[in-house]
Amino acid sequence: MIDRILLDHGGGGRLSHRLIREEILPRFACAALNGLPDAATLDPGGLRMLFSTDSFVVQPLFFPGGCIGDLAVFGTVNDLAVAGSRPRWLSLGMILEEGLPLAILRRVLDAVQLAASRCDLQVVTGDTKVVRRGQCDGMYLNTAGIGQALPGFALGPERLRPGDRVLVSGPLGDHGLAVLAAREGLGLANGPVSDTRPLHRLVLALGELAPGVRFMRDPTRGGLAAVLNEMVEERAVGVMIEERRLPFSPATRALAELTGLDLLHVASEGCLVLVCAPELAPAILERWRPLPEGAQACVIGQVAEDASLVVLETAIGGRRVVDAPQGELLPRIC
Amino acid sequence: MIDRILLDHGGGGRLSHRLIREEILPRFACAALNGLPDAATLDPGGLRMLFSTDSFVVQPLFFPGGCIGDLAVFGTVNDLAVAGSRPRWLSLGMILEEGLPLAILRRVLDAVQLAASRCDLQVVTGDTKVVRRGQCDGMYLNTAGIGQALPGFALGPERLRPGDRVLVSGPLGDHGLAVLAAREGLGLANGPVSDTRPLHRLVLALGELAPGVRFMRDPTRGGLAAVLNEMVEERAVGVMIEERRLPFSPATRALAELTGLDLLHVASEGCLVLVCAPELAPAILERWRPLPEGAQACVIGQVAEDASLVVLETAIGGRRVVDAPQGELLPRIC
Repeated sequence: MIDRILLDHGGGGRLSHRLIREEILPRFACAALNGLPDAATLDPGGLRMLFSTDSFVVQPLFFPGGCIGDLAVFGTVNDLAVAGSRPRWLSLGMILEEGLPLAILRRVLDAVQLAASRCDLQVVTGDTKVVRRGQCDGMYLNTAGIGQALPGFALGPERLRPGDRVLVSGPLGDHGLAVLAAREGLGLANGPVSDTRPLHRLVLALGELAPGVRFMRDPTRGGLAAVLNEMVEERAVGVMIEERRLPFSPATRALAELTGLDLLHVASEGCLVLVCAPELAPAILERWRPLPEGAQACVIGQVAEDASLVVLETAIGGRRVVDAPQGELLPRIC
Repeated sequence: MIDRILLDHGGGGRLSHRLIREEILPRFACAALNGLPDAATLDPGGLRMLFSTDSFVVQPLFFPGGCIGDLAVFGTVNDLAVAGSRPRWLSLGMILEEGLPLAILRRVLDAVQLAASRCDLQVVTGDTKVVRRGQCDGMYLNTAGIGQALPGFALGPERLRPGDRVLVSGPLGDHGLAVLAAREGLGLANGPVSDTRPLHRLVLALGELAPGVRFMRDPTRGGLAAVLNEMVEERAVGVMIEERRLPFSPATRALAELTGLDLLHVASEGCLVLVCAPELAPAILERWRPLPEGAQACVIGQVAEDASLVVLETAIGGRRVVDAPQGELLPRIC
């Protein structure tokens, strides 16, 4: 019996889910938590608002492609966006370690500011705590965000139908491997670069196609495998993805081969997984591809009839079941 | 020149304010941050909403009168309440240290749940991160909250007029000294007990008196001295408080005398400082005193004409200036 917190409890895999199912949901059960969406739907005075939070403990603070500052903004922006809203307001909570160079703090705050302005949102409230040397690792951030619901979306895995198309907006796993390479000091000349970026423009671009979208999520901790397994968990449908269609950056694929890591389990921070009615897929790709963050968008598979199963059709025509990750493949990547 | 983060940067005193003025405001300037309120005012679709966040790093996690869990709920509830709103929704972000006993986590979550239900609000979204042993001290929490503005309030230090009354809802400094006693293992038989509690009922009780209320704040980090100094900073008015009127619990007063700590600088977590038009003070006290959290409410002084000065009239009739604290008197009390 597990009686202590393990790293795996924070990994976005099965142990994370058990913690949530056994410790969080029984205490805080409410309509907003049903289905554990990335953001809660609030309904003050008839206005639909979305509300989400994330803490960030990434190590190192700076990595190829970004830093904890933009990650903290885009992470919450993306949770709000995939819930079908336009992100508007952000809070910023900082826990700083005594001795942290002010120059580092300034670089991170610059990144927060730039990221917020790229998303056209305002940091409107915040808080700073300082703990003694050795009581946190440089700095931890928290952001909470509020978005305004976009019209037309009715998202949820209960809307999935066999034949629905599964799309991704770009390459998978770049963030996780970029952080790994930075942390291990691999010093690769052309190593992986994090894809940390906002996804709200991809969601806004859907416009009047919204009613045909069934499901959106960004594959962060636990990667694509975690998102798809959660999506079909306890459902009458499953999902089938084709290995040859999965988009990977060359540097990320190379490092994955070197390290033996399964990229289906590695986090992205700027990739959108979307499921839609089959006839909508071409129109969505047409809207996404002109945007830099959607340039490599593609269909990777479809909803299938095998209840609750995520199946990969391999490049040589075989089939294997893609399990949800058990726990933390790469700790502290976000 | 200071080029590193010091504990004092998180203390709610002058160094905290310098950090905010020099590093935060220049980057994130927006209407919501003007005057650095406890909560930001948002205005989606004509609906006034308040938004606030706080991180909690209190050590030890449990102390006489409460724990990090209720503190995290009441802290944000109180920031929303003193901004003139009814707290409605809460997010909960947890950073857990590998090895934390699940039994501890459960006690804290129970406290969060109980505290939320006492305030009639819902925890609607959350996030859990786990860091390695030694990378955080047990657990850190963050809450962000959304409240709905109550009618009639127009709060701000610019509304202060000489003669306005300064009220507190109860004894000062209980929280800071309760945590200190627990942390130092003083083992006092009848030591200080934290006043951690929600203040929203005191605010709701104001009802139609709201327009006569000029200013509300809860004296947390930096204590009453910090709140009053902030209130009159760069203002044409000052404030005069009378030592003999200040309410203190006997155990807190005794420990303060023993340790030499100035209770004006020690945090409360369940006390409301309110400034109102003089004729309103008796009516407010009449509404507050039937509530347990307002039973010891009293007038402690009034707004005076000495620009920007906080003056204490001592019990023997002398006068001294009460400075804002420089930094962290008691680190990690919230």
